[in-house]
Parts: sequence; C-alpha cells; structure tokens
Amino acid sequence: MVSQLVEDATSGNRRALARLFTLLERDDDTLAAIVRATHTHAGNAYTVGVTGPPGAGKSTLVDGLVRASRDEGLSVGVLAVDPTSPFSGGAVLGDRIRMQQHFLDRGVFIRSLATKGAHGGLSRVAWAAARLLDACGRDVVYVETVGVGQTELEVMRVADTVVVAVVPEAGDAVQAMKAGLMEIADVFVVNKADRSGADRMVSALRTMLEIGEHRPDWMPPVIASQAHRKLGIPELHDAIARHRESLQEGCGLSRRRGERLREEFTRTLAERIQSRLADATSPGGALADLAARVERGEVDPYTAAGQAMAEGIALGRFASLEDPCGIK
Amino acid sequence: MVSQLVEDATSGNRRALARLFTLLERDDDTLAAIVRATHTHAGNAYTVGVTGPPGAGKSTLVDGLVRASRDEGLSVGVLAVDPTSPFSGGAVLGDRIRMQQHFLDRGVFIRSLATKGAHGGLSRVAWAAARLLDACGRDVVYVETVGVGQTELEVMRVADTVVVAVVPEAGDAVQAMKAGLMEIADVFVVNKADRSGADRMVSALRTMLEIGEHRPDWMPPVIASQAHRKLGIPELHDAIARHRESLQEGCGLSRRRGERLREEFTRTLAERIQSRLADATSPGGALADLAARVERGEVDPYTAAGQAMAEGIALGRFASLEDPCGIK
Repeated sequence: MVSQLVEDATSGNRRALARLFTLLERDDDTLAAIVRATHTHAGNAYTVGVTGPPGAGKSTLVDGLVRASRDEGLSVGVLAVDPTSPFSGGAVLGDRIRMQQHFLDRGVFIRSLATKGAHGGLSRVAWAAARLLDACGRDVVYVETVGVGQTELEVMRVADTVVVAVVPEAGDAVQAMKAGLMEIADVFVVNKADRSGADRMVSALRTMLEIGEHRPDWMPPVIASQAHRKLGIPELHDAIARHRESLQEGCGLSRRRGERLREEFTRTLAERIQSRLADATSPGGALADLAARVERGEVDPYTAAGQAMAEGIALGRFASLEDPCGIK
Repeated sequence: MVSQLVEDATSGNRRALARLFTLLERDDDTLAAIVRATHTHAGNAYTVGVTGPPGAGKSTLVDGLVRASRDEGLSVGVLAVDPTSPFSGGAVLGDRIRMQQHFLDRGVFIRSLATKGAHGGLSRVAWAAARLLDACGRDVVYVETVGVGQTELEVMRVADTVVVAVVPEAGDAVQAMKAGLMEIADVFVVNKADRSGADRMVSALRTMLEIGEHRPDWMPPVIASQAHRKLGIPELHDAIARHRESLQEGCGLSRRRGERLREEFTRTLAERIQSRLADATSPGGALADLAARVERGEVDPYTAAGQAMAEGIALGRFASLEDPCGIK
C-alpha cells in the first residue's frame, strides 16, 4: 500500500501525499516503510526551520518566506510542528488561518504535525515528513515550531538552515540563550522591530554571537523585521540563501544531512535492541529467570547485568569481527 | 579497596562509610562495586522519601521525623538530594545547618548528594547510597529532595514510603497534581498549617485522592503539620508506620523493592549495550561501514538498522534459547 501511495504521491497526486502524512503519524514501522520507499527520491529540497518563543510571529514570518519562494517559482512545503497536546492547539489553528491564502495555491502544501508517542517521536515524524515532501518534489520545506522547548530544538535538526525569531522584549535574548538557541541559530530575526528596544536587541544579539563560540565559516546575521508589514522579509530570505551558499561551498550541507541520517540509524538500532531486551526480561524470555533472581534479591543488578553481557548479549559481534557468533 | 572499606563500614567505622560515599559519586563502575559488596548486608532498613515543592518545609519535617525515630532508639541515615547545580546549593546548606543538632549524635548519619552525570544518574546514586546506609546497619533512611522535578520523582523510587509535603498556598495542590505527586504519595502532609487555607487544602487533597485512581489496599492519609513548632510530627510518624505495616501485610514491600532492583538491572544492561553500540558504529567498529553508508545516503536508516539486527546484533539469543549463537 505504501509503495503504491509513494508512487502516486511522487507523481504529483496530492491526495496520496495527504494519505501518506496520515500514515506517517500512525506508528514507527509505517514511518520506516515510507522513508524507505521515498529514500531514493529525496535529497533535493532545501529545508528551513523557524523556531523561537511563542508570540515571536513565526507564522507570519513563514508566511512571508513562502511568498518569497513562490515568487521565485519554487514549490513549497510547510510543516507546522506543535508539541503541545491537541487540546491546547487553538493558537496554532488561528495562525494556520492566515496561511489559508496559500490554500488554493497548488504550489504550497501545508500540514500540521502534533505530538504523538514517546520522547524523540515528534522529531522523527518531522524529519520523515520533510523527507516525504522532498521526495514529492517540493523545492523548499519550511518547518515551523510553536514554542521553543527541548522537543522543538530536536525538531530543528531536520533543517539545513535554522532561523531563530525573537521579539524586542527584555529578557527574550536571555531566554534564547538559556534555551540553547544561540548554538543552533544560523540566522537571527528580531521581529516586531517597530517595538521599542528593537535596535538594542539586534546589537545585543550581535554582541552575544561575537563573544560566543561560533563556527569558523559562518557568523549568523541578525535581521530586523516587521513581518506583518512585510518589512525585512526580503533581507531574511536573502540571509537564508547566503547561508545555503556557505553550506554548499564547504561540505557543510552533506555533513549536516549525513549526521541526521546517522543519528536516525543509531537511534533506531538502539530502540530495536531495547525492545528485544524488554522481550527477553519478560516472563518466558531468555533473561526472565535472571531478572526474577534480581527481583528476589538473590543477585545484585550489576553482577546480573555483567552475567547477561558475558553470556552472550552478543554485541561482541560488532566489537570484534573475529567472533561471528557474537558469543564472548 | 572497596571490599575492605565495606567491611570496615559495615562494622561501624564512620570514616570508611564517609569514604564510600565519596567513591559512590565517582563513577558507575565504582558504584556497582559498592552495591555488589554491600548486597548481602542490605535489605533491613526502611526508607522514607520526603518530596514536595521548594518552601514546603521538608527539611524541618525530616528533622522532626529523625528525632521521632531516635526517640524509638533507631539509628538513622539522612540523604539530602539536590539535583540543581552545585552553584545554587545555598538553600540546602542553610537547611542542613538546622540538622547540626544531630551532628554529634552518632546514631544519625547525614549526607548531601548533588547531581552528577547523565539523566537518571542521581536516582541511581541515591538508590545506592540508601543501600549503603542500609548495609551499614541504619534502621531508617530518610531521603529528602530539594524540589520536585522529574529527577526528584525518579529519586523517590528508592523509598518504601513516599511523603509529599505541600503548604496551604493556592495552586500548590494543582502543582502537586501536575508534577505527578498524587500518583507517588503514600502520605500527604500539609505543612505550615497555621497559614490560612490549610483546612481547605487538606480537604481538597482528600477529595482529589478519593476521586483519583487509588491503590485498593491503601488510601494516602492527609496530615496537617506545623513542623517548626513540632505539631503534627507524631501523626506523620504514625502514618508512615501504618503505611509500612500495610505494605508488610501484603507483599507490597518486597514487590516495591524487587521492582526497583529489576529496573536497575535492565537499565544497566541497556546502558552497556548502548555503549557497545557506540563502539561498533565508531571508526574501526564492526558497524562503522554501515553507519558511513547511511551517512552518505546510500542506504536509508531503517533498512540499515534492520540489516544490523539481522546480521547478528544477536539479542536473538535472549528471545529464543534454541538459537545459542544469537544470529537472526
């Protein structure tokens, strides 16, 4: 089913694409099947992440960026990621309404992703969703988060360029630093720059960026904008393009994407091992007796763990190729 | 070295005990060695956890409980767990000063534990520290946390009885619910009960406990106290004793302790496997080539993970005993 849908979606069938998005959020196996089927098609889209505290006007900024990309004749995908519960999704819905002007534009595909499942799950779904849009021929994918917690930082790892939006309120810069935004920002934008303190905010950010450790090949620019009046959008769009060029000149782009792929590989492997481990310690599993002895206090947890490893938890196979059975 | 220190400490040498505490916080291997050496000595102490929001007077409550235990002729250990950084430890230190009255009492051993290492690390250290005090003959161990975050909730898993302390401020009950305290509390105490709203707080908590899901064999009592005036301490001490009896009547006590041991076993096993996995995907490791192919986009992460599992990540050994080589 997945492969047929992927074939249809990559040929431009929007209904198939929408169906795949629904499947993507269903479970990890289905997600894996979709990533697998789209793998060879993906790798052409450029992904821009937009994050920052609530109220920074991220949706309006993305709205402006979408328009700018469309003016260049590019097809666009937008992912709005909301890690809060579905019950508090009101604000997002309101923001989405502003995007409705793009709704009839077949060059723009908009989709919201809400949290499901375990820690790290949303970041995986966002990554797979961006790959899917990529495989279906979108030239640019914008990934927007609602807030700026740990989940959103993880989600931003999907992006080639990360835009951090703040407003000129006292404390916002400090919050941005605390939240770890200085480290992930490729471009800073001080939105609502008509408010007082905007200039000071811009220069404070520049100073912090200069003082802080920064990558040798890129100094994040700080742009002032008033997104609702469309001011600063061309400058922001341009800063993203310059960062993209900088990444492409070095090997930064393939490195970023490679790291993300590798991370997904090791995380998946760890999860699968974890699940085998849970099976093994459950009643009937091969480690059940040992786990029961630990539970009864007959052996301490660390001795038992050492025993389990020695008896052949057998990752030894990967530590040494000379040991093909993995028994140590 | 560890085994000699354990021998000395279990024979009543306080200097050896203090030295073991220092070693406990050093690294996981040393901690494991100490737990292993003390394993057969442990299992006699009763552990009481006291948690709740900052400012609830937890130290004063513990102070009163320590006195009550000493009046019964019991030897006592106190662990003050502070998951905040060492730089903000001022408040704890201040609280500790109040405990100085016990300082010359050889029947009381007090120790602070600060955060080190990874997520879950403090909970492990607290557990091992309680085991150590247990093995060294303490009859009762009180474990007190400074705040009430995720770490503190984890730390409370060391306790046989969990006391949750709150004050009669508006919102405190709601915060307690949000923080997951309703689920872990065996005894509630509304401290500073001379403040207005104390009665309402007590009955609100009782109502919430009655409405909520509760264990069939125990309804957490709600005690009002004014710890600094020593009011309510006997009632609290008594409530803890009743919970202990209730646990001992059923098989609740051994189940709690068994679960904690089992959890430590599976967590340790998972960590060791994780570390082998990290070795395997590093340059030179047996999975390094596969990881590099993922990084270059030649194979998608999920296909690669499946391949690694099939090729013999070999936990299969534990899923099926018929497959001693653990391949497939």
